[in-house]
Amino acid sequence: MFAPATYAARRRTLLDTMTRLGEHGLLLFLGNDESPCNYADNTYPFRQDSTFLYYFGIDHAGFAAVVDLDEGHATVYADDIGIDAIVWMGPQPSVRDLAATAAVDRTAPAAALADSMTAARASGRRVHVLPPYRAENMIRLMTLLDRRRVPEASVPFIRSVVEQRAVKSAEELADMETAVDLTIDMHLAGMRMARPGMREADIAARVTEIALAGGVGLSFPVIATIHGETLHNHFHGNVLASGDVFLLDCGAESHRHYAGDLSSTFPVDRTFTSQQKDIYRVVLDAHLAAVAAVAPHVPMREVHRTACRRIAEGMKSLGLMTGDMGEAVEAGAHALFFQCGTGHMLGLDVHDMEDLGEVYVGYDGEAKSTQFGLKSLRLARPLLPGFVFTIEPGVYFIPELAHRWKAEGRFTDFVNYAEVERWLGAGGMRIEENVTITADGSRILGKWRPRTIEEVEAERG
Amino acid sequence: MFAPATYAARRRTLLDTMTRLGEHGLLLFLGNDESPCNYADNTYPFRQDSTFLYYFGIDHAGFAAVVDLDEGHATVYADDIGIDAIVWMGPQPSVRDLAATAAVDRTAPAAALADSMTAARASGRRVHVLPPYRAENMIRLMTLLDRRRVPEASVPFIRSVVEQRAVKSAEELADMETAVDLTIDMHLAGMRMARPGMREADIAARVTEIALAGGVGLSFPVIATIHGETLHNHFHGNVLASGDVFLLDCGAESHRHYAGDLSSTFPVDRTFTSQQKDIYRVVLDAHLAAVAAVAPHVPMREVHRTACRRIAEGMKSLGLMTGDMGEAVEAGAHALFFQCGTGHMLGLDVHDMEDLGEVYVGYDGEAKSTQFGLKSLRLARPLLPGFVFTIEPGVYFIPELAHRWKAEGRFTDFVNYAEVERWLGAGGMRIEENVTITADGSRILGKWRPRTIEEVEAERG
Repeated sequence: MFAPATYAARRRTLLDTMTRLGEHGLLLFLGNDESPCNYADNTYPFRQDSTFLYYFGIDHAGFAAVVDLDEGHATVYADDIGIDAIVWMGPQPSVRDLAATAAVDRTAPAAALADSMTAARASGRRVHVLPPYRAENMIRLMTLLDRRRVPEASVPFIRSVVEQRAVKSAEELADMETAVDLTIDMHLAGMRMARPGMREADIAARVTEIALAGGVGLSFPVIATIHGETLHNHFHGNVLASGDVFLLDCGAESHRHYAGDLSSTFPVDRTFTSQQKDIYRVVLDAHLAAVAAVAPHVPMREVHRTACRRIAEGMKSLGLMTGDMGEAVEAGAHALFFQCGTGHMLGLDVHDMEDLGEVYVGYDGEAKSTQFGLKSLRLARPLLPGFVFTIEPGVYFIPELAHRWKAEGRFTDFVNYAEVERWLGAGGMRIEENVTITADGSRILGKWRPRTIEEVEAERG
Repeated sequence: MFAPATYAARRRTLLDTMTRLGEHGLLLFLGNDESPCNYADNTYPFRQDSTFLYYFGIDHAGFAAVVDLDEGHATVYADDIGIDAIVWMGPQPSVRDLAATAAVDRTAPAAALADSMTAARASGRRVHVLPPYRAENMIRLMTLLDRRRVPEASVPFIRSVVEQRAVKSAEELADMETAVDLTIDMHLAGMRMARPGMREADIAARVTEIALAGGVGLSFPVIATIHGETLHNHFHGNVLASGDVFLLDCGAESHRHYAGDLSSTFPVDRTFTSQQKDIYRVVLDAHLAAVAAVAPHVPMREVHRTACRRIAEGMKSLGLMTGDMGEAVEAGAHALFFQCGTGHMLGLDVHDMEDLGEVYVGYDGEAKSTQFGLKSLRLARPLLPGFVFTIEPGVYFIPELAHRWKAEGRFTDFVNYAEVERWLGAGGMRIEENVTITADGSRILGKWRPRTIEEVEAERG
């Protein structure tokens, strides 16, 4: 946790914002409960809700809290444990002590939350809620607010939280550096160990070990694959062979649960093949162009367009595309090779605040495109100082997609399908960094790590 | 998966059992969905429901199945994925192909399940359900059966599944051996690496790596602690110091999701202290006595009583207890040092079938004791050939419990509290094996591993 004053200040800001918007009533924060794996008491590793962590910091299951917009105070709801639980869990700090670490002096038993909600509804006060993403909290909300369906989330509450969490403070940035440095350790280990004959699972397991030993674990499921063309490939059963290219996309959480999220691409042999180098150069060029393009108030949509354009130009130089690449990108033809977005917000969540709605987090309330490729861009809005996000253009050869587009006759003016066929099987490559916007520019988080072909091959030595 | 015929035979047996019990209608099997961690799309590692795995084997999210008791056939419900999902997940086998691997030839889209349920209710047919443990499936059941509360589970369905899953086949036992052997690799690694100055997290991370690289991951959250007196201690933040004793309780899942579950206790130094040896000898004596006591048709309650009696006698020999140890155990005084049960069923779940109800799984429908200690015994019924379970007596010095009992004047005839005070701080020790009942005796699963003081210290060399 940060110091108690940090949480008090964050809640003060939120309360002021909501008040300025003319809102009244109660803000309800549901912490997460334990999450059952294959039966109720065999649980997945506990992960607190990120918004609860942000405003209260308490990293225990079974908590909830209310901020009273009119009275200006906060209350934490949870139960102390008894001797039977001490036998199994060991002595635990009291609810009162935990609340104090978040600068909250009002506490009440968990069951009192239902009474508070009943009283609020009886007196016609609005209860502002955020959209639940866990089924436990959907049921809890329906029960607390006596509804048959999940109650609608409060848009002013969502927007106020998004605007606040989007801008990282100096102490948050310092914490995120530790997450990124630990993530770099994972990537260096993976990059150094890969050899023909190894299994993808060996590398996935090793980077997981590093995340667990150095922090609190992974920030998202590891992608460790010789089939990088599958964007979220969580299968780890393949055996690495000479000539394969390996895509590692993984990250660690800091002890305060801030996420790192990096991708590396490296050869299973000591060096890339000539074809792999051709693709890697295109990816790196797009990556560097995107990094150079980010600056305060530049819309991320423009950064994405820059990356798409560089990839399209690169594909053209390799004979895979043809015609005017500006027009090709506007039409969406480049998305045969780059199907996703250039980046996303990063913070307490690896896709920061995704549960609060991409339209608020990444689009500031504006509508998203429905075009294949562009519709997967998670962050499009103008970048503000304090934003932290990923830059991760890539090139992916997806046989199913190429064959479908070819059969449908899509973008035949821009795509050289005969040549594409020769490259199917080349897999997928991505280079990903974590970037923050400063007052007058941008900065890549974390210590040095290899990015160029020469640097990557040197690490493989 | 096993061969398709295995799943067909398992369903045939279940159908015959239910029919013999005079039951009609539909058996509804809900597979698990993805489980959200900190937002909907950042999911925990997928774990299929164990009963679904047992009867259908399909290890994918979003599946359900129905066995029609009257028509005698099974239907698998799920949706094939489209091109958008292929981009993110890669090509996936069709629902039809997956159903075929479970010898099911009837498939239908996921949405058709609701229609089947509506039709069944309209014609007055009973829909048998199992108790859900994930909130997603609670909501799904309420929606499917149009209820405001989670529908009551079918006791004949539960009992039929429990009796069947409790007896492991030869192919299941062979698979469980692989899980236990991998679990032994985890324990050997932990036992060999521990050194003063290391963190608990270093050992937890290393055993996790082995489980991930060799199988599909952990069968339950790792306990890796210098405070073994806390029975389910998942905190890994302590630094190992000379003089500490380390308790490692962890297990791997096989590729078919059968669980291993072993505990080891070893010194952080190369050798145990004299006091640690005194305790270890008591634990090992109880362990060996319990292992020797198990045999076909012996109630596990008796095995537990044997372990408790040995622990009580051991405590008496060390001056911690006094009086008649037979009476002490009946009264529950030994539970100051051994607060939990001697073992639990093991199979596709580490506490096998715990979601189906301990009263059915471990007590064959009989009521459980409410006595502290004995109430935590999960398995009491007579042991049958094919049962697989753990043997895990232990000794735990829990300061909070000793101080409370002393203050309450409990068992002063049996407990020497003055002497107990000198042992608080000695932590907790446990030795755990996985055992199966054979036609005429029992067998410990897995390869050799160190259990005696000499064997453990040799491994620390």
